[in-house]
Amino acid sequence: MFWSTKSWDAAGKHCYITGGSSGLGLALAKMLAAQGAHVSIVARDEQRLARALVELETVRQSKAQLFQVFSYSLLTAEASEAALKAAMERHSDVTPDAAFLCAGKSIPRFFVEYTTAELTEGMDFGYWVQAWSAWFLAKKMVAQRRTGSITFVSSTLGLMTVPGYSGYCPGKHALRGLADTLRCEFLLYGIDIHIFFPPTMFTPSYEEENKIKPALTKKIEEADGGLTAEQAAMGQAHITADFLTDSFRVSSRGSAPSNGWILDGVIDLAARVWIPLWSTLTDRRVRAHREGHYQHLQEIGFFAF
Amino acid sequence: MFWSTKSWDAAGKHCYITGGSSGLGLALAKMLAAQGAHVSIVARDEQRLARALVELETVRQSKAQLFQVFSYSLLTAEASEAALKAAMERHSDVTPDAAFLCAGKSIPRFFVEYTTAELTEGMDFGYWVQAWSAWFLAKKMVAQRRTGSITFVSSTLGLMTVPGYSGYCPGKHALRGLADTLRCEFLLYGIDIHIFFPPTMFTPSYEEENKIKPALTKKIEEADGGLTAEQAAMGQAHITADFLTDSFRVSSRGSAPSNGWILDGVIDLAARVWIPLWSTLTDRRVRAHREGHYQHLQEIGFFAF
Repeated sequence: MFWSTKSWDAAGKHCYITGGSSGLGLALAKMLAAQGAHVSIVARDEQRLARALVELETVRQSKAQLFQVFSYSLLTAEASEAALKAAMERHSDVTPDAAFLCAGKSIPRFFVEYTTAELTEGMDFGYWVQAWSAWFLAKKMVAQRRTGSITFVSSTLGLMTVPGYSGYCPGKHALRGLADTLRCEFLLYGIDIHIFFPPTMFTPSYEEENKIKPALTKKIEEADGGLTAEQAAMGQAHITADFLTDSFRVSSRGSAPSNGWILDGVIDLAARVWIPLWSTLTDRRVRAHREGHYQHLQEIGFFAF
Repeated sequence: MFWSTKSWDAAGKHCYITGGSSGLGLALAKMLAAQGAHVSIVARDEQRLARALVELETVRQSKAQLFQVFSYSLLTAEASEAALKAAMERHSDVTPDAAFLCAGKSIPRFFVEYTTAELTEGMDFGYWVQAWSAWFLAKKMVAQRRTGSITFVSSTLGLMTVPGYSGYCPGKHALRGLADTLRCEFLLYGIDIHIFFPPTMFTPSYEEENKIKPALTKKIEEADGGLTAEQAAMGQAHITADFLTDSFRVSSRGSAPSNGWILDGVIDLAARVWIPLWSTLTDRRVRAHREGHYQHLQEIGFFAF
């Protein structure tokens, strides 16, 4: 998924993984550890971090491999700087060879029902939790004249939108804007930028999210089969892991490089037919939900606002 | 540009315009005033607001028209709420018929050179300055069971990216993610969502921006002819105002509705050829700038970091 295994050998490399104590991040950390990489994981929950460390040991390839876990929130530039510095300490303060920014979470809700705190959190956990890490790491890499790669993790919702995710889609779109800008700008330094758009993954965050997700959003998502974090982490080359997301990648490519001019053209032809049909169907579903939604707003006392 | 004049008559309508004291916002305010609308402008600079009020008077159509200006920063939910409430006061506290969220500015700089404050400002002025207004207005509209329209103003840089804008593209991409989500979600309420992607406009903000813009960014932008705010405000239907942006709109459509299946298909075919060529040329320019850029970093003392 993140890279073509032919062109990149993880053995002996220092891989820095945020959000690496569960879900996609953990699956990726184990895969890299099994390939002989040094792995540094940053996440918040100390118990999950401890468990992740145990899991990494089960796939250890050599005594020389260094596995580290650190508890930081990553929501500010300062915390992101501290986390990266901690991970670099036992690597002679040298920047990691590859960073995978998997931290993030979503709070699905109807726009008018979000609180200001929730909307702010949406951007914090959708965008800043990765952007600050990338910013400090890039500065360090350039200052040390090091090359390497930074991989952001957006979402299918970074390429298209679904009602109920107005607090999440903006941050995931923003990540895409950042990654696209940096992909070109960082040719200046020889730093590679990737961005992964995973579809629905059945991870702990997803279960958490489902508890509060609007019923309408669940219905629209039904078509999305989802896949496990392991499948995503094992998936093919850069950047998508399923046909749905690939269609949205191609049909929202803008100025981003294609994954192959001809194949992308064919996918785009299909997308040109099925996405408008999907959109029309989705619009119809939303309109049909109108009465039920006003009832819901009545029940939660919205009109007293 | 913002709507088809055939389908919407501004006369007697209350139009709420943020960032309306200069540039695109002011041009739009005058156009709506000339069509007989009540106009409320929100911006920061009190002198510019006073001048804007004078300009509105020059196009007044009837005594009944109410022109108002308010000074608010709009960067927080609270300020955005206060601004809208102030504008609604003399309209019996009823929500505006149409809101045009034109507030915003950009700080172009290389990613590793941004300060944390500048990156935060990038998202504040690229995204939140419009998102908070939309959020509070939408809540009020739904609570009052009113319909109407909300128009966001993104940028060509909300559909594609250019090196030097890593502090701006994310916010403008985020706005696009928000508008696309709300376009569908707000079918629930009958509130119309539009988003405009203006190309380079020769406005006061642009002149400000050019003073600090990296030389490389200027070079890449040369191909973009730009247009005046008046041209943009007079331009045709929803949503773009030049062929370049239209190409990026079509080639980054994702799940957004098309402006016409056949014409968009033709534009997309052209885009499929010229955008990859443009990208390749841009990548080459960036690589060629590498040495000059390291010299620049040396000069500003970056490596002491």
